[in-house]
Amino acid sequence: MKTHKVREIGYVRSPYREQAGTPIQPSYGEQRDAEIHINPEFREALEDLERFSRIWVISWMDRSRSYKLKVIPYRDTVERGLFSSRAPNRPNPIGISAVRLISVDIESCIIKVRGIDLLDGTPVLDIKPYAPRFDSHSDEAAGWLDNSLPRQTADDRFKGED
Amino acid sequence: MKTHKVREIGYVRSPYREQAGTPIQPSYGEQRDAEIHINPEFREALEDLERFSRIWVISWMDRSRSYKLKVIPYRDTVERGLFSSRAPNRPNPIGISAVRLISVDIESCIIKVRGIDLLDGTPVLDIKPYAPRFDSHSDEAAGWLDNSLPRQTADDRFKGED
Repeated sequence: MKTHKVREIGYVRSPYREQAGTPIQPSYGEQRDAEIHINPEFREALEDLERFSRIWVISWMDRSRSYKLKVIPYRDTVERGLFSSRAPNRPNPIGISAVRLISVDIESCIIKVRGIDLLDGTPVLDIKPYAPRFDSHSDEAAGWLDNSLPRQTADDRFKGED
Repeated sequence: MKTHKVREIGYVRSPYREQAGTPIQPSYGEQRDAEIHINPEFREALEDLERFSRIWVISWMDRSRSYKLKVIPYRDTVERGLFSSRAPNRPNPIGISAVRLISVDIESCIIKVRGIDLLDGTPVLDIKPYAPRFDSHSDEAAGWLDNSLPRQTADDRFKGED
């Protein structure tokens, strides 16, 4: 199968150093702030972002390890198909995090956000604006997630051996 | 800057052969169906997906060309910072498309969807379930997009020279 090369455009500064205890989604970590540090070569691309109240952080979940096609998700007790879960160990460990935007400092190329589900140092691949008209769909059926456990933070189940 | 390797897990079958006329977001193309063909090595990972009514298609927008840090978005008339736009030409041309799920055929590894904003043959990198509790945020400010043009399909502005 064909491969393509992605490159880091920045990285995450977050309070989380290990999977256990890290919020499984941004909304479960809003009591703590985080930063996205963008490489200054992309400074101009940050303009106009601050007037959005939420952004997508597209990340490379570099602490992911080998994936399995069936997983027991954090919010479930039985195995589910990997593509029906948001588990971090995937064929391409790309994360999509819709985070609350606090500020964009163009000079330092630092984006401040409230609540993130990514480990400290996670590489960032892209930043996109969150647009309710494209991204917000409130009435969707969510399969097993509709009757799932109330768990909000990760444990070690997706931690691989180094 | 460090790079990482992504690999194709499948590809899009859509009615769109060129950027001009392709919907700029999935919701603007719902009168036409499309398919995601997944490599059979990932068959088991498709289980449990069908009970979700919407999925994220994470794609590699392979017809993208060199990016600029400021772009005139499809829905605007003035230049905006690239990261405040959803323009396809980006440092990493990764697309996130929230599409309506019609069916998942585990045997053939074909996902049928309604409405897509991707060209025929676009490589797919990941499939994730759309979860309203994680992904739906209706009350967000969307910067310049809140007062944007009603354009629903692309033109040639992001088409590069081959």
